[in-house]
Amino acid sequence: MTAGRPSRADVATVPRFANVATFMRAEMSQNPGNLDIAMFGVPFDLGSSFRSGSRHGPAQIRELSRLIREVNYLTGVAPFTVCRVADLGDAPVNSLDVNASLNSIEDFVLDIVERGARPLVAGGDHTISLAILRAVAKDTPVALIQIDAHSDTQDKMLGHPVANGTVFRRAIEEGLLLPHLCFQVGIRGTLFKVDELAWARNAGVTVFDMEDVETLGAGEVAVQIMNAIGDRPTYLTFDIDALDPSIAPGTGGLEPGGLSYREALRLLHGIRGLDIVGADVVEVCPPLDPGVLTATAAANIMFEELCLIAEALDQEP
Amino acid sequence: MTAGRPSRADVATVPRFANVATFMRAEMSQNPGNLDIAMFGVPFDLGSSFRSGSRHGPAQIRELSRLIREVNYLTGVAPFTVCRVADLGDAPVNSLDVNASLNSIEDFVLDIVERGARPLVAGGDHTISLAILRAVAKDTPVALIQIDAHSDTQDKMLGHPVANGTVFRRAIEEGLLLPHLCFQVGIRGTLFKVDELAWARNAGVTVFDMEDVETLGAGEVAVQIMNAIGDRPTYLTFDIDALDPSIAPGTGGLEPGGLSYREALRLLHGIRGLDIVGADVVEVCPPLDPGVLTATAAANIMFEELCLIAEALDQEP
Amino acid sequence: MTAGRPSRADVATVPRFANVATFMRAEMSQNPGNLDIAMFGVPFDLGSSFRSGSRHGPAQIRELSRLIREVNYLTGVAPFTVCRVADLGDAPVNSLDVNASLNSIEDFVLDIVERGARPLVAGGDHTISLAILRAVAKDTPVALIQIDAHSDTQDKMLGHPVANGTVFRRAIEEGLLLPHLCFQVGIRGTLFKVDELAWARNAGVTVFDMEDVETLGAGEVAVQIMNAIGDRPTYLTFDIDALDPSIAPGTGGLEPGGLSYREALRLLHGIRGLDIVGADVVEVCPPLDPGVLTATAAANIMFEELCLIAEALDQEP
Amino acid sequence: MTAGRPSRADVATVPRFANVATFMRAEMSQNPGNLDIAMFGVPFDLGSSFRSGSRHGPAQIRELSRLIREVNYLTGVAPFTVCRVADLGDAPVNSLDVNASLNSIEDFVLDIVERGARPLVAGGDHTISLAILRAVAKDTPVALIQIDAHSDTQDKMLGHPVANGTVFRRAIEEGLLLPHLCFQVGIRGTLFKVDELAWARNAGVTVFDMEDVETLGAGEVAVQIMNAIGDRPTYLTFDIDALDPSIAPGTGGLEPGGLSYREALRLLHGIRGLDIVGADVVEVCPPLDPGVLTATAAANIMFEELCLIAEALDQEP
Amino acid sequence: MTAGRPSRADVATVPRFANVATFMRAEMSQNPGNLDIAMFGVPFDLGSSFRSGSRHGPAQIRELSRLIREVNYLTGVAPFTVCRVADLGDAPVNSLDVNASLNSIEDFVLDIVERGARPLVAGGDHTISLAILRAVAKDTPVALIQIDAHSDTQDKMLGHPVANGTVFRRAIEEGLLLPHLCFQVGIRGTLFKVDELAWARNAGVTVFDMEDVETLGAGEVAVQIMNAIGDRPTYLTFDIDALDPSIAPGTGGLEPGGLSYREALRLLHGIRGLDIVGADVVEVCPPLDPGVLTATAAANIMFEELCLIAEALDQEP
Amino acid sequence: MTAGRPSRADVATVPRFANVATFMRAEMSQNPGNLDIAMFGVPFDLGSSFRSGSRHGPAQIRELSRLIREVNYLTGVAPFTVCRVADLGDAPVNSLDVNASLNSIEDFVLDIVERGARPLVAGGDHTISLAILRAVAKDTPVALIQIDAHSDTQDKMLGHPVANGTVFRRAIEEGLLLPHLCFQVGIRGTLFKVDELAWARNAGVTVFDMEDVETLGAGEVAVQIMNAIGDRPTYLTFDIDALDPSIAPGTGGLEPGGLSYREALRLLHGIRGLDIVGADVVEVCPPLDPGVLTATAAANIMFEELCLIAEALDQEP
Repeated sequence: MTAGRPSRADVATVPRFANVATFMRAEMSQNPGNLDIAMFGVPFDLGSSFRSGSRHGPAQIRELSRLIREVNYLTGVAPFTVCRVADLGDAPVNSLDVNASLNSIEDFVLDIVERGARPLVAGGDHTISLAILRAVAKDTPVALIQIDAHSDTQDKMLGHPVANGTVFRRAIEEGLLLPHLCFQVGIRGTLFKVDELAWARNAGVTVFDMEDVETLGAGEVAVQIMNAIGDRPTYLTFDIDALDPSIAPGTGGLEPGGLSYREALRLLHGIRGLDIVGADVVEVCPPLDPGVLTATAAANIMFEELCLIAEALDQEP
Repeated sequence: MTAGRPSRADVATVPRFANVATFMRAEMSQNPGNLDIAMFGVPFDLGSSFRSGSRHGPAQIRELSRLIREVNYLTGVAPFTVCRVADLGDAPVNSLDVNASLNSIEDFVLDIVERGARPLVAGGDHTISLAILRAVAKDTPVALIQIDAHSDTQDKMLGHPVANGTVFRRAIEEGLLLPHLCFQVGIRGTLFKVDELAWARNAGVTVFDMEDVETLGAGEVAVQIMNAIGDRPTYLTFDIDALDPSIAPGTGGLEPGGLSYREALRLLHGIRGLDIVGADVVEVCPPLDPGVLTATAAANIMFEELCLIAEALDQEP
Repeated sequence: MTAGRPSRADVATVPRFANVATFMRAEMSQNPGNLDIAMFGVPFDLGSSFRSGSRHGPAQIRELSRLIREVNYLTGVAPFTVCRVADLGDAPVNSLDVNASLNSIEDFVLDIVERGARPLVAGGDHTISLAILRAVAKDTPVALIQIDAHSDTQDKMLGHPVANGTVFRRAIEEGLLLPHLCFQVGIRGTLFKVDELAWARNAGVTVFDMEDVETLGAGEVAVQIMNAIGDRPTYLTFDIDALDPSIAPGTGGLEPGGLSYREALRLLHGIRGLDIVGADVVEVCPPLDPGVLTATAAANIMFEELCLIAEALDQEP
Repeated sequence: MTAGRPSRADVATVPRFANVATFMRAEMSQNPGNLDIAMFGVPFDLGSSFRSGSRHGPAQIRELSRLIREVNYLTGVAPFTVCRVADLGDAPVNSLDVNASLNSIEDFVLDIVERGARPLVAGGDHTISLAILRAVAKDTPVALIQIDAHSDTQDKMLGHPVANGTVFRRAIEEGLLLPHLCFQVGIRGTLFKVDELAWARNAGVTVFDMEDVETLGAGEVAVQIMNAIGDRPTYLTFDIDALDPSIAPGTGGLEPGGLSYREALRLLHGIRGLDIVGADVVEVCPPLDPGVLTATAAANIMFEELCLIAEALDQEP
Repeated sequence: MTAGRPSRADVATVPRFANVATFMRAEMSQNPGNLDIAMFGVPFDLGSSFRSGSRHGPAQIRELSRLIREVNYLTGVAPFTVCRVADLGDAPVNSLDVNASLNSIEDFVLDIVERGARPLVAGGDHTISLAILRAVAKDTPVALIQIDAHSDTQDKMLGHPVANGTVFRRAIEEGLLLPHLCFQVGIRGTLFKVDELAWARNAGVTVFDMEDVETLGAGEVAVQIMNAIGDRPTYLTFDIDALDPSIAPGTGGLEPGGLSYREALRLLHGIRGLDIVGADVVEVCPPLDPGVLTATAAANIMFEELCLIAEALDQEP
Repeated sequence: MTAGRPSRADVATVPRFANVATFMRAEMSQNPGNLDIAMFGVPFDLGSSFRSGSRHGPAQIRELSRLIREVNYLTGVAPFTVCRVADLGDAPVNSLDVNASLNSIEDFVLDIVERGARPLVAGGDHTISLAILRAVAKDTPVALIQIDAHSDTQDKMLGHPVANGTVFRRAIEEGLLLPHLCFQVGIRGTLFKVDELAWARNAGVTVFDMEDVETLGAGEVAVQIMNAIGDRPTYLTFDIDALDPSIAPGTGGLEPGGLSYREALRLLHGIRGLDIVGADVVEVCPPLDPGVLTATAAANIMFEELCLIAEALDQEP
């Protein structure tokens, strides 16, 4: 797995502010066939029913991911050393056409998956996870870990079936997910209607809302998820609004009272060893974040996801 | 209590960014007589001894309260369904005249109270609570729950008896409050003098400072307050500087080390069932908050207060 | 024309920061039948091919239009005295559906026009002008004065025929405009292709680009437009990106080197007396404007447009 | 006049960002008796009828005035070389008491004037000019050059006689100004009422509004003022809102279409040689200016005022 | 120790926004010989390998330290009452010369120390601690408490031995520190290399990383440090990036998942009684902090450090 | 000259916000040998004597240059069609070492020049122009057009010979420039000393200060420069502080009263036909520009420079 690694400027000798901004200063590539992990952006936000702007997420996450160095402090993983990782640029989208965009995203991911790389994605609004799952789970449904303030399992938003609040209902309906292995963590906030979560729960989804996280602790939540999923292939999606607005203020659907970054870390470190076949971080909305904290958090989350996938690949026989 | 509810645009079908900004997208009204709960702003900040700007608080809280949907996640309360709630606009104030403003605010609230509605107010600096209490507690003193970084029981500020740091001393002196049922939660920060809290404690006020909150937990603090107050009518005032600056940076008297939003929620949910006869959220200072987090937090706190009053009304025989 | 004017809080006695934000502190209304001029917002930005966010334009223009007092300094016009003017709220839109939105905007404007009021609109991206023109020019094509950095007469953007860069081509094709009485002022910036303006010029549109404005002066440009249009009904559309970014930084398609505000004033004062049957100001994008200058400029432009329509109505026999 | 000059850190050898921020890095002093020109702040904004915050003006002008070097580019004046200049700190104010503040400001200035120094002041809202004039013109009325977007000669604001919109009417009524030698430059914006300027004009004040500035040119305006005033002692007041919002966005009463900085320079250089006995720059409101342009402009204006006073003193026999 | 205390404007009668900004509104002085504690700034940031800007830290910390009142809420210490404290301005630096700056800083501190005052410093990047230690520990090595996200014990950064990431390695090598009494608290973030902390640990440094803080609690960490250090003279350095970015976003090396302000307080209160011979707060980078939270936190930390030194002095025989 | 042009995403079909940010969305390359024009960044700001931060300039100019389309509106030039243009990334720098950086920049440029491409550079502080000139004018001195608020011909800054205020004195002393063909345009601001410009004028440099630009007009200034330079190879350097702060607020040495963007355009269009052998835009300091106007202006200036070089190349025999 380590042959022909893309080069990366040495973080100890090249100033991190230098050069074109790529994800974590990785080399750019246009050939997923040479990669273990393919990082890319999806600058699409037409699924935002309320505040948009996450089309600019990938660019700002790239810029702030300059901060990332080589090695994961807690786990010791050095993903660029053990895996071939590159930045493929952005998936093609059309800012005037929802369906064309979803199709072109799906095709882009399908090419990556079919050539043997695992996708690590920066959004974009949460709608993009549907397109990614259509590629990743094309043949086999996967387990889902969704860290998010909202369940995103509504039937429709403003009368439409595809939007950032409906994606996981659609994904379950399309058979892309194993509903009993879907876990949502961080749910909170005001609801559109009293029984908004009923469909998800009836479908088999396990909801750990913020009260659950407080009661159980983030570490125990991770343990329960680990135990349930076992070695099934799993998709990990991180909506940045899962974090508390104090650490991630730039997102369309702010909900006070979210996860601290440390709780998020405990969750992500708690699921080490799962077979993460793809991951994303979504809903980073730069125009709403004058202090760029949100993209900073997202860049770090993306690095943790990268380490998780790298560990998964490292365990393969 | 549910006849003739003001209409409100359906949060599931009308985009939340649309239309004139009212508190939580409520209908506007000029007739408190038809209401259970009267929301209004008090754009007054002449009581600010240090940094002013909370005169713009009501407008920005209205704008950010667009985020609020229908139903309280944790309690299931849908206040607009069970109560008649509207936005009455702002109480009349004069930005060049402290006393005229306090009088016109008092008159405005008195009219609301006398016509049977309960006030839910967005400030403005904390001085406004004195004017509101003069109306709400005109005939009978009330219990007080004050969530705040500062005790606001000084004798004078810069030589003046009425300012945002003296209001609750004045309110106790005027017989508007039941001193032994006054509870302050979240107190911290540097003091003007060593015995700054002595008057309050001598008067009977219970101070839960941040160290108490840490030691007891926010839930236990709520229990103690609940047990003491019982079924007495209670006024709830939330100075946004009670929250940690990370989640409420836009306020005149920043004090690091405050309540997390989740602790605030635990406090507010812990006092469900109290007979809240009025409530406010104050000291939101938009010019000091480029990222609008403060008004976002305030809008959510105001929704929690709305739910508490709605529950109180729902329990009435 | 002056019977039954909506009331408006006295700017000399009520602080301008007080009360719910409506356009220029006008009274809200839901009945265009009682009005001479109907102000409303169109919070729609799905036609933005590049940077979106103008869906929040109407709310922020309302907030900043608090600054507007009673009387136009230069012309002495007091529009709220001579006309019945109110804020109708926002036209209905759907942030997930372009065509449904364009239809509901058109219907909303049609109702206004048919009941005898003239629309004065705050956008929203420039696409909304097409929907407005479909209503305003339903029976008779109108002249057009378009103050703008871009011609917006491309055939398609990203393959789509309806977007903020194609609206006036569509409007001409649909017969809504008198092409030889279409005037574009302020055009500049890099072009998509060498002959980008050829279609417009061939269609009869007169383009005054920034070099023309410099050479002729804004006053002379206005004279030429006045002379050509005479007494034909005219629609006035003001894309805020026509102004220099120094005074209007918050817009999706920034082009340095634009009109100063004083040139814009000279233009607008130079066309006094035209029969302005409707007007808009568009492309104000609050998330891109931390200093709120753009909405401030837009609120003032909107007031100038209001005065122009008021003068037009005042001249009617 | 040059004996015993206060020292000032050498701008060529000490980094300008270093040390406590004083006006233009001048030495601090508490003894106006040793000075030719006494610089100080007046952090008072209770006269603001609309948006407040200029209480923080002096501090931010001090910080941005670090940019100022030694010598005026155009005039060659080096004020710190030819005059004894120091920063006296701030005049005493009380943020809860308008009248006490006006009195303590007046006393502070009187002490300066009586000890032979000329005041150069950073506000604060425009109300402070009234207090300063009461000291400067205590014995003899002075001429006035007021560069401002607003005439500030209303009778009352919100019912009150002392506010930032009434000061020059009060000053004329109190006999502090020579009304026929009062010149207002830069007036514009919407008016409270049609005849808002009538009182001023009737009293003898000459108004050069923005249209006059455009027609005559700033240089010619200066010539006319020079010719009229001759060698009478003159007070110079500069409301930062006279400048266009693009260069001075942080002020309470924004009016697009103002003076460019270059026009302001031409005005100020055009009145070289007048006997300027005091000067101020007011209405800088830091909380409304995320990019600190306004205080930057104000610091430069203040330096130009300093050079004008230095030249006036240099001409004395 | 209390004779001849510098005066300080009464926080209860002089508005805190008034006057030139000094640290905590202390009197300025140029004579450390009269002082117990000498506060000063070091506006130096040439040791920043990544994002610079902390040269502006001292000025902004001064401005925000206006918020600080008289008395420490938790400990009751009133440092300005029990000690002679003043603001000495800034240590001399040269923004084009690293070595000249380090030398002039060292000389400046040496003069303070030799005249019997203890330094309390606002930086500047972390490199300045090396210069300070060279003065403070000139004759005797000291214990170190370093609250920080990074160990700053690399051998070189970008090939250079003196930078903000190498200072404590240099200080240990130069014999300025007692390596077995060096304690680092708050360490986290991605690493340059796998064994980045090995040198420090081998040298005897105790690292409490964030996981340790979570496991032990901040109070227990303090106890362990106290017990180890005993009565040895101790230098306390607080890199503001130790705090979570939510409360200290304006710093060059942001690392999510840091100390809450309350944990930092618990740490600092936990070491009361130590013989703190000098302290600093560093890496506050104002240009990266539009909301000024970072300097607000730093001002409060600096006050806590002031109280610790005051208590240490108070205990002296 | 047109064979083998690097590809570039079609601005009409690919959303401009998509993909990794390169200068004007150009293709990246590592081979200057294939290019006519080599664009690159120089993220170096250690020559800033006052406010630093321009090390982040290249990254933000890349991000904002997404706005640039294909064709120059006024000249009709389509540089990417007529020339081979690519983004080479950044020249190597060391943020802890001035001299090493200047050397590595010089080597980087020398390689470009020797392989036949012309450099188009985004800084970085103005010091980088010295390194670039050492490469570009290695064999033959060149003419200079310097658009700038400051002459940058001081002997030393803070005692040092190499800094952003001394570069053109050094360049003249090193024989890199033809002193009588050095033209400085836009000079203004306060001076360090009375005769600050004397050296430059004595050396033969022609200074067009802002007063000259006002008197002559920017067009006439260009004519005079054109006539003097004729067909000599010319380096064009644009310090963004030449522009007025209203349009370029994010730069270390703000000087109000600068060039409008339209004047800058007239200057640049006025020198079409000169043999521009290299060009830069410098001193863009993103941390000082919350509204990103400065990088927007810089991206447009850089495009104009690109068009000038493209035209120069197009004229070659």
